[in-house]
Amino acid sequence: MTADPVPLRQPAEGPHPASGSAHPASGADVANGARSIRKADRARQVADVLRQQIHSGRCPDPLPTEAELAAEFAVSRNAVREALALLRDEGLIGRVPRVGTYVAQRKYDHDLDSLRGLKETLRGHGEVRNEVRAAVRLVPPPAVANRLALEPGESAVYLERLRYLGDLPLSLDHTYLAPDIGAQILDCDLRSEDIFALIERISGQSLGSADLAVEAITADIHSAATLQAPEGSALLLLERLTYLADGRPVDLEYIRMRGDRITLRNSLVRTAEGNDWRLSPHGVGQSAG
Amino acid sequence: MTADPVPLRQPAEGPHPASGSAHPASGADVANGARSIRKADRARQVADVLRQQIHSGRCPDPLPTEAELAAEFAVSRNAVREALALLRDEGLIGRVPRVGTYVAQRKYDHDLDSLRGLKETLRGHGEVRNEVRAAVRLVPPPAVANRLALEPGESAVYLERLRYLGDLPLSLDHTYLAPDIGAQILDCDLRSEDIFALIERISGQSLGSADLAVEAITADIHSAATLQAPEGSALLLLERLTYLADGRPVDLEYIRMRGDRITLRNSLVRTAEGNDWRLSPHGVGQSAG
Repeated sequence: MTADPVPLRQPAEGPHPASGSAHPASGADVANGARSIRKADRARQVADVLRQQIHSGRCPDPLPTEAELAAEFAVSRNAVREALALLRDEGLIGRVPRVGTYVAQRKYDHDLDSLRGLKETLRGHGEVRNEVRAAVRLVPPPAVANRLALEPGESAVYLERLRYLGDLPLSLDHTYLAPDIGAQILDCDLRSEDIFALIERISGQSLGSADLAVEAITADIHSAATLQAPEGSALLLLERLTYLADGRPVDLEYIRMRGDRITLRNSLVRTAEGNDWRLSPHGVGQSAG
Repeated sequence: MTADPVPLRQPAEGPHPASGSAHPASGADVANGARSIRKADRARQVADVLRQQIHSGRCPDPLPTEAELAAEFAVSRNAVREALALLRDEGLIGRVPRVGTYVAQRKYDHDLDSLRGLKETLRGHGEVRNEVRAAVRLVPPPAVANRLALEPGESAVYLERLRYLGDLPLSLDHTYLAPDIGAQILDCDLRSEDIFALIERISGQSLGSADLAVEAITADIHSAATLQAPEGSALLLLERLTYLADGRPVDLEYIRMRGDRITLRNSLVRTAEGNDWRLSPHGVGQSAG
């Protein structure tokens, strides 16, 4: 075990320094206007914890008062105010002077472990409906054709759907489908059904696997308007290529989810392989494509 | 199989409509200034495909000319220009008039399937080093204590690290550690080692599993300054609670990753269970905590 001293750029200081003692110091000990970056860090710490409490439904609504939160987190009221301002800017909470702070918006969990359509995922939360903005046959760009293993010039089916939970726009999905399956999907009820369910019904086989890439991007002006989100707000962009059980790629999707509405969740398992701690998913050789 | 007609809000039109024919239409057929939303959609389609090509290293650098891209995607040059503007705003490409368009920045893949530290993940891409901004003992807020199964008032160890790949800040990590393991980690070289590796060395057991939540948020002014990212740029926020093999939670992290630098990747598998298509991760009962 190495025992290099830790090079502390900043002296020991946190939301609640205990320095060997388990007794809380008073919030005032920690507040230090001269260290604006450290105060910003404390606000972020408070915001991170509150954010998770709000998402998990463990946060009282309305929220505790500033004074109560300052005591709970052992930080200054200024740090609490900053933390609440961050969460308000993210659209998670609203604040009414002299009334209090309330949870403005729940987020919905989307499971990253499983291959599941949005309707299936949000079952129990409300009705998922799709506004179908485009549903056409087209010759996709070569990079898309390549992912779907199409011949050059072969057509695909392209869908564009704005997906609501009740009246809440959650995601804007661009979908390219293999032509044989896509042609039949054009005849289906795209307003209320998940594409995954339709693919399984049409192909007569289950989905096998998918490759997923997740990014954070800022909403361009058109995506923002479509999703009824503020311009420049953060979106989760998922690119997902889905294969049938027989290994054929059939469905390439670009999904823009509102960052203030969706949390992606996953469980990870660490497994040993050989001499090295090589790390792998829940099993070995599960990677698709 | 349902056979409802598809309610097309917009008539069939896409980046490259084929309408039953596999022959590409000319780009000019598709361009239509009057349909500004549809043009924006086309720009987004082009940007989505180019983005993935850039990330996967399959995009030539410099990029093809506007005219070449317009032909490849069968869209107007205006749509190409809009698409390139979106990618430039995301910091992915740079454009020099009369010289061309080049890839400004690679993104790095972070595997969502596995429980792996950043240094381990980016092995082969360069040196990961950590600027240690805080490393202290403190009494964590109740919500954090609860996640780590600590007694009320029990102290934890808190770390704040800014993590670089070479000279590139990639992520800002706030970490709360169980007190016994955390105390020993304070004596280790936090500048170059992954916390995961240190936990395994100190505890003498491997990590077991983790629960992960992924969100997209906009960078607040302080996070942006610390990560040297533009204010308001999109960040991936990961909350990860990691358990030892024996099931004890020991490490709660809030990780802010630059959205323009990191792509999270995952492979999903669909499995059947009982009569219903219940969907589960790579195995059954793998969920932790």
